Amino acid sequence: MGKVYIIGAGPGDSELITLKAIKILRRADVVIYDRLVNSKILKHARQAKEFIYVGKTHGDAYKQEEINKLMIQKAKEHNIVVRLKNGDPFIFGRGGEECEALKEAGIEYEIIPGITSAIAAPEYAGIPLTHRNYASSVAIVTGHRKENKPLNLQQILKAVDTTVILMGISTIQEIIKQALDTGLAPQTPLAIIQSATTKRQKTIITTLQEVEETLKKHKIKPPAVIVIGKVAQLHKTLAWCKEK
Amino acid sequence: MGKVYIIGAGPGDSELITLKAIKILRRADVVIYDRLVNSKILKHARQAKEFIYVGKTHGDAYKQEEINKLMIQKAKEHNIVVRLKNGDPFIFGRGGEECEALKEAGIEYEIIPGITSAIAAPEYAGIPLTHRNYASSVAIVTGHRKENKPLNLQQILKAVDTTVILMGISTIQEIIKQALDTGLAPQTPLAIIQSATTKRQKTIITTLQEVEETLKKHKIKPPAVIVIGKVAQLHKTLAWCKEK
Repeated sequence: MGKVYIIGAGPGDSELITLKAIKILRRADVVIYDRLVNSKILKHARQAKEFIYVGKTHGDAYKQEEINKLMIQKAKEHNIVVRLKNGDPFIFGRGGEECEALKEAGIEYEIIPGITSAIAAPEYAGIPLTHRNYASSVAIVTGHRKENKPLNLQQILKAVDTTVILMGISTIQEIIKQALDTGLAPQTPLAIIQSATTKRQKTIITTLQEVEETLKKHKIKPPAVIVIGKVAQLHKTLAWCKEK
Repeated sequence: MGKVYIIGAGPGDSELITLKAIKILRRADVVIYDRLVNSKILKHARQAKEFIYVGKTHGDAYKQEEINKLMIQKAKEHNIVVRLKNGDPFIFGRGGEECEALKEAGIEYEIIPGITSAIAAPEYAGIPLTHRNYASSVAIVTGHRKENKPLNLQQILKAVDTTVILMGISTIQEIIKQALDTGLAPQTPLAIIQSATTKRQKTIITTLQEVEETLKKHKIKPPAVIVIGKVAQLHKTLAWCKEK
């Protein structure tokens, strides 16, 4: 019986993967990987006989249950199975569910954290999520509706200084409405960071009241990270990464 | 004029550093590093002529202003200066302030994200911060009082499903009181993860109402990460890391 390593591949830049992950990848027999995983990262898996693409972002191209079954099946056939996920496995990565499935099947596993785009995207845009003068708390949420239920972000947006929203581009109108409804100032800065940490990175700084206008001017495509809060304005002075 | 690389060294395990960070460390002339940075990580800096320990955790052993001056001075003397910080530079690492100082001095810089203990500690304890059935939002806060002002965590504790508290051991009584005052159930699970990702890692699972009893039984020393929320109970089934 083999072991499954649930590994975070990081946010996009192929060098933002940990040494620990690389060492395991080099010994892997099978790699089961998601959409958006940088292909350069797969190259570390020199000995792997199988690379299985499961096309998962937040949707269900490959159903989560099928992925669970696949991991279990492969762990029965091989020694080292890598389950390679975007960002970090435990930040909206459904890594917890994968662990539960492995546990139930009696298969040993280990988790290797990855750099999450929730932190790296703002970082590459020069936006500190916390800052002594502007922000002492940060929340990370998803803009993806669960079973098409409405989002429920008002309380969070009000409670923390900085809110980071993953997978929020398609629901951005709803997010803005909730932010304004809960009493955030219309001038509250907002950043949208597209394709963060890759050569295609693009950062747009706007405000809650101007987002609609901004979205008309720029075509924004997922993956993108949204940051709401005063720190977003620091991009203008602290940006260090060349963008197109 | 040199360049400063503000690098996240990760949470403790010396292999939880990124490939990108290692490549820069190998070329570094000077390394300015914090307390708790694993000494094995410093060994990547083979060519460095100077290693400067600035003893900073969250306190001010070396004053932040002195660190800023030091970075600037060293960047004037050398090509590659590494500022090596625990965890991630932009999560309670005051990386934003260091960038501001460099910007003002006209010194080029780059930021390399690191694995934050806010995510890695729960991960090594088998606690997913988000989970389809238990948690769709997570907040990261500090338990460290700013200028000795009382903490103000009630709204946050109420708004999100999972709260991660860094540097919260010395203020844990105050945190628990705020959690109960804001209406969290006394049975709400709470995890304390000490020395996460190192050989000395130790996880304690308790509840809001039982924390005081728990703290009498176990001596808990910083660094420790506190997780409040339903997901904390998953440690019992999903723990994968051997602890003492």
